[in-house]
Amino acid sequence: MRFRPFLLLAAGLLRGLAPAAGQGYGQFVDPMIGSEGLGRVFIGPSCPFGMVKPSPDCTASPNSGWLPEPTPVTGFAQVHVSGTGGGPKYGNILLMPFSGPLALGDNSAHRQHEHAELGYYRTQLAGAGSAAAGIGVEITASPKVSFYRLAYPRQQPRALKLDAGFFLGEQPEPDGREAQQFVGSEVEVVSATEVRGYSRIRGGWNNGPAYTVYFAAVFDAPVAEFVTWKGTRLQPGQKLQADSGEKTGALLRFANGAGDTLRVKVGISFLSAARASENVRAEIPGWDFDLVRRQLRARWDALLGRAELHPDTPLDQKKLFYTGLYHTMLMPVDRSGENPLWNGPQPYYDDFYAIWDTFRSSNPLITLLAPQREVDIVNALLNIYQHDGYLPEARSGNANGRTQGGSNAEVLIADAFVKNLPGIDYRQGLAAMLKDATVPPGGNEEQEGRGDLADYRRLGYLPSGVPRAGNRTLDYAYDDYCIAVVAKGLGQLPVYQQYRQQAGNWQNLWRDGYRNHGATGFIMPRDAAGKWLDSIPYGTSVRQHPTFVYTPLMRENPWYVCHWCAFFYEATSWEYSLSVPHQVPVLIAKSGGRDAFRARLDTLFEKKFYNVANEPSFLTPSLYHWLGRPDLSSQRIRQIIAQSFNATHFGLPGNDDSGAMSSWLAFQMMGLYPNAGQSYYLLNAPLVKQTTLHQENGRDFRITAHNLSATNVYVESARLNGKPFRQAWIEHQDIVNGGELLLEMAAQPADWGTRQLPPVTE
Amino acid sequence: MRFRPFLLLAAGLLRGLAPAAGQGYGQFVDPMIGSEGLGRVFIGPSCPFGMVKPSPDCTASPNSGWLPEPTPVTGFAQVHVSGTGGGPKYGNILLMPFSGPLALGDNSAHRQHEHAELGYYRTQLAGAGSAAAGIGVEITASPKVSFYRLAYPRQQPRALKLDAGFFLGEQPEPDGREAQQFVGSEVEVVSATEVRGYSRIRGGWNNGPAYTVYFAAVFDAPVAEFVTWKGTRLQPGQKLQADSGEKTGALLRFANGAGDTLRVKVGISFLSAARASENVRAEIPGWDFDLVRRQLRARWDALLGRAELHPDTPLDQKKLFYTGLYHTMLMPVDRSGENPLWNGPQPYYDDFYAIWDTFRSSNPLITLLAPQREVDIVNALLNIYQHDGYLPEARSGNANGRTQGGSNAEVLIADAFVKNLPGIDYRQGLAAMLKDATVPPGGNEEQEGRGDLADYRRLGYLPSGVPRAGNRTLDYAYDDYCIAVVAKGLGQLPVYQQYRQQAGNWQNLWRDGYRNHGATGFIMPRDAAGKWLDSIPYGTSVRQHPTFVYTPLMRENPWYVCHWCAFFYEATSWEYSLSVPHQVPVLIAKSGGRDAFRARLDTLFEKKFYNVANEPSFLTPSLYHWLGRPDLSSQRIRQIIAQSFNATHFGLPGNDDSGAMSSWLAFQMMGLYPNAGQSYYLLNAPLVKQTTLHQENGRDFRITAHNLSATNVYVESARLNGKPFRQAWIEHQDIVNGGELLLEMAAQPADWGTRQLPPVTE
Repeated sequence: MRFRPFLLLAAGLLRGLAPAAGQGYGQFVDPMIGSEGLGRVFIGPSCPFGMVKPSPDCTASPNSGWLPEPTPVTGFAQVHVSGTGGGPKYGNILLMPFSGPLALGDNSAHRQHEHAELGYYRTQLAGAGSAAAGIGVEITASPKVSFYRLAYPRQQPRALKLDAGFFLGEQPEPDGREAQQFVGSEVEVVSATEVRGYSRIRGGWNNGPAYTVYFAAVFDAPVAEFVTWKGTRLQPGQKLQADSGEKTGALLRFANGAGDTLRVKVGISFLSAARASENVRAEIPGWDFDLVRRQLRARWDALLGRAELHPDTPLDQKKLFYTGLYHTMLMPVDRSGENPLWNGPQPYYDDFYAIWDTFRSSNPLITLLAPQREVDIVNALLNIYQHDGYLPEARSGNANGRTQGGSNAEVLIADAFVKNLPGIDYRQGLAAMLKDATVPPGGNEEQEGRGDLADYRRLGYLPSGVPRAGNRTLDYAYDDYCIAVVAKGLGQLPVYQQYRQQAGNWQNLWRDGYRNHGATGFIMPRDAAGKWLDSIPYGTSVRQHPTFVYTPLMRENPWYVCHWCAFFYEATSWEYSLSVPHQVPVLIAKSGGRDAFRARLDTLFEKKFYNVANEPSFLTPSLYHWLGRPDLSSQRIRQIIAQSFNATHFGLPGNDDSGAMSSWLAFQMMGLYPNAGQSYYLLNAPLVKQTTLHQENGRDFRITAHNLSATNVYVESARLNGKPFRQAWIEHQDIVNGGELLLEMAAQPADWGTRQLPPVTE
Repeated sequence: MRFRPFLLLAAGLLRGLAPAAGQGYGQFVDPMIGSEGLGRVFIGPSCPFGMVKPSPDCTASPNSGWLPEPTPVTGFAQVHVSGTGGGPKYGNILLMPFSGPLALGDNSAHRQHEHAELGYYRTQLAGAGSAAAGIGVEITASPKVSFYRLAYPRQQPRALKLDAGFFLGEQPEPDGREAQQFVGSEVEVVSATEVRGYSRIRGGWNNGPAYTVYFAAVFDAPVAEFVTWKGTRLQPGQKLQADSGEKTGALLRFANGAGDTLRVKVGISFLSAARASENVRAEIPGWDFDLVRRQLRARWDALLGRAELHPDTPLDQKKLFYTGLYHTMLMPVDRSGENPLWNGPQPYYDDFYAIWDTFRSSNPLITLLAPQREVDIVNALLNIYQHDGYLPEARSGNANGRTQGGSNAEVLIADAFVKNLPGIDYRQGLAAMLKDATVPPGGNEEQEGRGDLADYRRLGYLPSGVPRAGNRTLDYAYDDYCIAVVAKGLGQLPVYQQYRQQAGNWQNLWRDGYRNHGATGFIMPRDAAGKWLDSIPYGTSVRQHPTFVYTPLMRENPWYVCHWCAFFYEATSWEYSLSVPHQVPVLIAKSGGRDAFRARLDTLFEKKFYNVANEPSFLTPSLYHWLGRPDLSSQRIRQIIAQSFNATHFGLPGNDDSGAMSSWLAFQMMGLYPNAGQSYYLLNAPLVKQTTLHQENGRDFRITAHNLSATNVYVESARLNGKPFRQAWIEHQDIVNGGELLLEMAAQPADWGTRQLPPVTE
């Protein structure tokens, strides 16, 4: 045999791109962590920030599609989100294999031997009454194409349903809040091996306008028989069901001659069905399922490998950490080249769920591991601002909506600015931030920008009665701080001075001297005249003027006050009164000083007023740093992790919110925690003995916890690049520069971090 | 031959539906009236409110597509608007026949023997250097399908360009105000006789988001050779050019065997290309061009015939009148079943250009001649409110935007209410009106609702410096009047009382005692502190504070003040200070009483301060009615018509604005003029001797001007259904009831209309 160096070289390259599954860091990812309970993570295969997210859909209600047995699976839809609460979104283009005649009907099935790993899902459909029983389903994906390998029972009919009318969260009432609503659909059998079409849906979590998911399903065997449907009308051999505002789909049967396995590639596009078909040809030209699976794994391995844990790290910790990174990089979704709204070479991202959730730790983790990706995301936000008029706070289905608190894309811009991310037009960024801060969004006050802005500008706070007045005042003040930071850096001093001033607006809702459970001073409801309210109105009776007593522990409202109208979103004043990431020293002073603040924090944790599942509390356990007690921060963080996180299906304490929970955990495991919008990370006792960051700039940064053990959980001293390092925080630039942070661990805290407190930039 | 009664019957029905062209009232329509000069009317074939509007496109700049020779024609696009100003919109899916090799290049041609009549356009392409020279083009249409008959020179190659990248108003700078911008396109040769694709464009006049025009072009001969393109890359035989954000198109050659004539049907859809193809099959299953042309004519004849002029009416008057009706019913466009945004059985209309232009006379004319159509339009507006959040003021490309003055869909709702149009949920209507009046649209203050609403609510007027403060205050006050009318009718008395009060807000900008050219009291700029301004600021220098003197005759601003930022939109204070359609007696009193008001009106007309081309002045010549001098109203109206309207290409004095100018004329010719939002018509001396309204309810109403002649131009007396009728106005209900209004004409005015003045409903 002749020596063919070129081919060998090519094969070598291919291997480099696609190592055998299970060898890279992806092996430690368990997509099932956080899949049950409150986590709601997406469990199917997805590329990093991937556009397709195929998953079993178990009834039409869960947000991520998947539910555990014994809930049957209805089919496998191609688009999902991860970790969300509220009304579902997507769940489009449902595929369901079955064996039997081409008739409409429920082929829902149970699952046996269900298995999910990074980039790969497998199950065996089962159930006595189901025409799908006995069919093996495997799924992998490229960025825009789902790839199915379906193993039918021997010599049984190989049939497939493609349902363009399915979607998650359908409700009987039209136009219900957060309910997805059907707009239109189409299917066309374009050849013996391809079906195209689309599903057009509106509403859902962000109450958005119509979006269209186009698809092209390509088969490795010719269709032997087909029936298409519209509404409830089945039409054998009818190739096209054009859109007439009814649900459509296709039932296909493939001849058995070619074997019992059917491979199906389902390309997705947001531009057109033909584009979806081109996406199939461009991304998966062949039929090698295992190759695509390896390629997906290789993409992740390259990314996950940027944070290398010491090989001796216990398996559960590796699972928690790498699954954390994985969850963080499922969304937002990279839809560059798939934007149906405007044209241009800029990156385009969708599915921000929501920046209120992700700005604190998810985006900073992306900045740390994949800064160019974060640059693309920020540029996509600015591009959306330029064309849609506002930065998104949340976005899905190509439309902004909706706000929970502030206009927190501003924090992402400030965070990129202080961390010197290149390739971003920060002047445009400042203009976008100022738009948020000065132009009321109007109409739908939840869609984007800052709702009730006129009140905020007039009073310096949002008065009681305005929805979410408490947490929005806090967020707006922090967003104003971020504006000040960027304005100062760009030399726009009048803007800086104004927003630096406004950054203190949270103090306008700080009720000095108000006591509760031993703590003093709380963010409390105040009316537009400036009066503090001990009771706040409820109901709409203008005769009786009913009220209820408001306390800093009040979490829920009476049932007749809407979820979105409460004083705080998803938490209590005990939690929110500590959520001032830019002015912690002021907060300490207003709480009565160091001792009182220490007692307040202790009460918070010991009386279980703290809830790690709500993002505004993410920084709270680290506040001991500002008292010179990083040891207490670390203690609390370890307690929280031990109590709330684990490597099981129930391993996340709340909605993962696009990786928010997961990224908080991953940061803390490394011993770092960011204060987004500011340039440093707080240092804590790592949970892992060594993390090496292989940065995009080629420089490694290593964090080593020397002598870490079950008892040695305190940082006794530290060295940065060999020199003593006494502060319990580190600048982003120090990491970017590369080097090593060596933390000497001990069973007792020493004076490390007690004197040089974290910086406050004003 | 056997007697076949059924077939004869069918043929008879068909004849009933499609009389020979030229026999119905459509024969009097001349689509070229208003095509040159300022009118900008669409000149191609269109069904009433028809979705396709094919027209020659002469360069990519004119709003309606068409320009006169010697401007060459670039091709024939399928979607246009009529009579608009500002930036162009649409001009999508360009078709151009040529004879020659399939190469990209300009085949622009001159036109010979160009001819347009209702439902039919014909030209002969010409020009020495053009590959299209010698080709005859004929066009007709069904509601959603353009139909072309192309006659190629004998034995010359029959080639065709289908350009999915063409659109009107392309400009080099990205995202320019009012500029259409390319988003994406696609073409696919789906069979030997069909090409499908789409064009996705954003921006344009209403600065809207992306809209997609899908098409299916079907040929009566097989394609013998084809080349498709993307960007500048030609690809022979490449069937599909999928969307990748580049311009695409197809060049086709048809074999010459089948003759020299090629028929092409171009179906349009806003849902999908397959839907466009179904629209072709549903609307024009065959190839009989003349049948389609007759069917289109029959649709129009049935509609135009509802206003029957006396057969003796001079031809030019018939042309002016029926062309006026025709122009009024080109838009808005009926897109029922073609809404890509939400689903439902409700009617859907697009292309409101703008209601500020059409509420005064276009919509009232539709209400008079086709009330069910107006019900559908109002219900479409309410449906848009329900799903998009606001009533449109203007709408195009499936998106609201933009406002020139008030939120005048409110006037349409009030007009329908006072005219008792059935089948409208007026409670929802009131809710929609109150949304406009209470919820600031925010962000883009031009898109919908009432911009700068907070100022209006706080001050009762818009202060100087706010764009269009003058005319928006007037409009908001009238819109508030309309709210009061509906609220009162629905028994919502507190709402009624509040808005009745606000209806007087125009008086807050009425500068009492201010004199100009002998008149007293004008709508003048006032600052937020209440101070009247003789000079208003311009420019942005905060050091120099430059100003210019503001006078009631100021029409234009210095060039550096934007068109949209002036105190008045498109007119002077002389004109706008008379634009108070709900409180004319108050206006008369504030102007100094009857004599002063008479003198003021005389000055307006004699000094040529009046401009009929601006819609807020439409009612002004009729204001003499409130002085008991309908004879003077009639005199002015006749003068205006004689000076400003004629049956030539230059026959309209301004942008036809979706039929606004045309409907004003048509009303005045009958002797009626509506005061939209109020239940009556003012009566004037008709220009035609008799109009019979054949109403949808089956009842005829006839207006006869007895003894009308060149000198007998005054109404001496009147009888309604035989009884003396002394008032110079008539209730809508009197017309609906059927009957006859007999006006006795004379050479001198008598006391008719001098005592019982037009009603003022408060």
